[in-house]
Amino acid sequence: MNFCSHCGAPVSLQIPPGDNLPRHICEACGTIHYQNPKVVVGAIATWEDKILMCRRAIEPRYGMWTLPAGFMENNETSGEAALRETLEEAGARVELGPMFTFVDLPHISQIHIIYRAKLLHLDFNPGEESLEAALVSEAEIPWNEIAFRSIDYTLKCFFEDRRRGKFDLHSIALSIPAPGTFR
Amino acid sequence: MNFCSHCGAPVSLQIPPGDNLPRHICEACGTIHYQNPKVVVGAIATWEDKILMCRRAIEPRYGMWTLPAGFMENNETSGEAALRETLEEAGARVELGPMFTFVDLPHISQIHIIYRAKLLHLDFNPGEESLEAALVSEAEIPWNEIAFRSIDYTLKCFFEDRRRGKFDLHSIALSIPAPGTFR
Repeated sequence: MNFCSHCGAPVSLQIPPGDNLPRHICEACGTIHYQNPKVVVGAIATWEDKILMCRRAIEPRYGMWTLPAGFMENNETSGEAALRETLEEAGARVELGPMFTFVDLPHISQIHIIYRAKLLHLDFNPGEESLEAALVSEAEIPWNEIAFRSIDYTLKCFFEDRRRGKFDLHSIALSIPAPGTFR
Repeated sequence: MNFCSHCGAPVSLQIPPGDNLPRHICEACGTIHYQNPKVVVGAIATWEDKILMCRRAIEPRYGMWTLPAGFMENNETSGEAALRETLEEAGARVELGPMFTFVDLPHISQIHIIYRAKLLHLDFNPGEESLEAALVSEAEIPWNEIAFRSIDYTLKCFFEDRRRGKFDLHSIALSIPAPGTFR
């Protein structure tokens, strides 16, 4: 951030009175520009024993597999975001269940939230951001081609919970990856 | 938003290719400026049968009662945000428990998340943003002076769960308030 989005004058990093972190402050109009984490929301939607997954047609992680998910928009609920992203990325309508995973990713200032869901019909189709949308059984999960660590975590929690017959909310903080693993 | 925070040129509202919502796009450098919901995180901290509450020293809702909570910062986890806000607003150190309430507020593009917590010591003190910090029993809760609907919801869920002896995650979407109730 170099310029004030309100008046167009240059900004500089300063700690505002009563604050304790540097913020971008406009040198002309005084507006303080806060920057905050973003929320990514998606769904783990099932049909019988299979999971709805998408293969990414965009960077990052082009060609890798994920659950339908994306950035939450202003003026929508997290549930609406999960429904919208599932429709946009997999062409699928689902019925949402409870929140299933809540993943803090502080090194990229994101929270990833995945809801459980039931697929309502089988005529889904990949959207513009997906190469494929497919129903995948546990044995078929491409564990070495999962796009994001939050999705890997969600899938592992899901199959463990399904085996023991009880689904809970799972929360974790995934911080900076080990060297050589850039997910 | 009137100007590009990257290059300082004017922005205009346009729907980018492949998108379906208008975004602020820079007419000079082409940067797309996305705006996303903000996350507020706090804690419902207990000492014996009492709850740690703060009376607000800032707008909005100056003078009204709330739980310690505030905007999540970049590069922290939601748990770290809850601990930080409790320390800043009530001068209190707590041990965090599970997530307790998750409230979507789409009309103001916010999510409010409250964790359960245990107060670790009694020498807490109101921070700069609080007029008072106090331990409050259920009978003493100032129900007509609660600053935010998400906090009112959290307190009600808490006392109900405590009565039945089991604490769950409670999620709700609170949309535009009824006329005359601006919380």
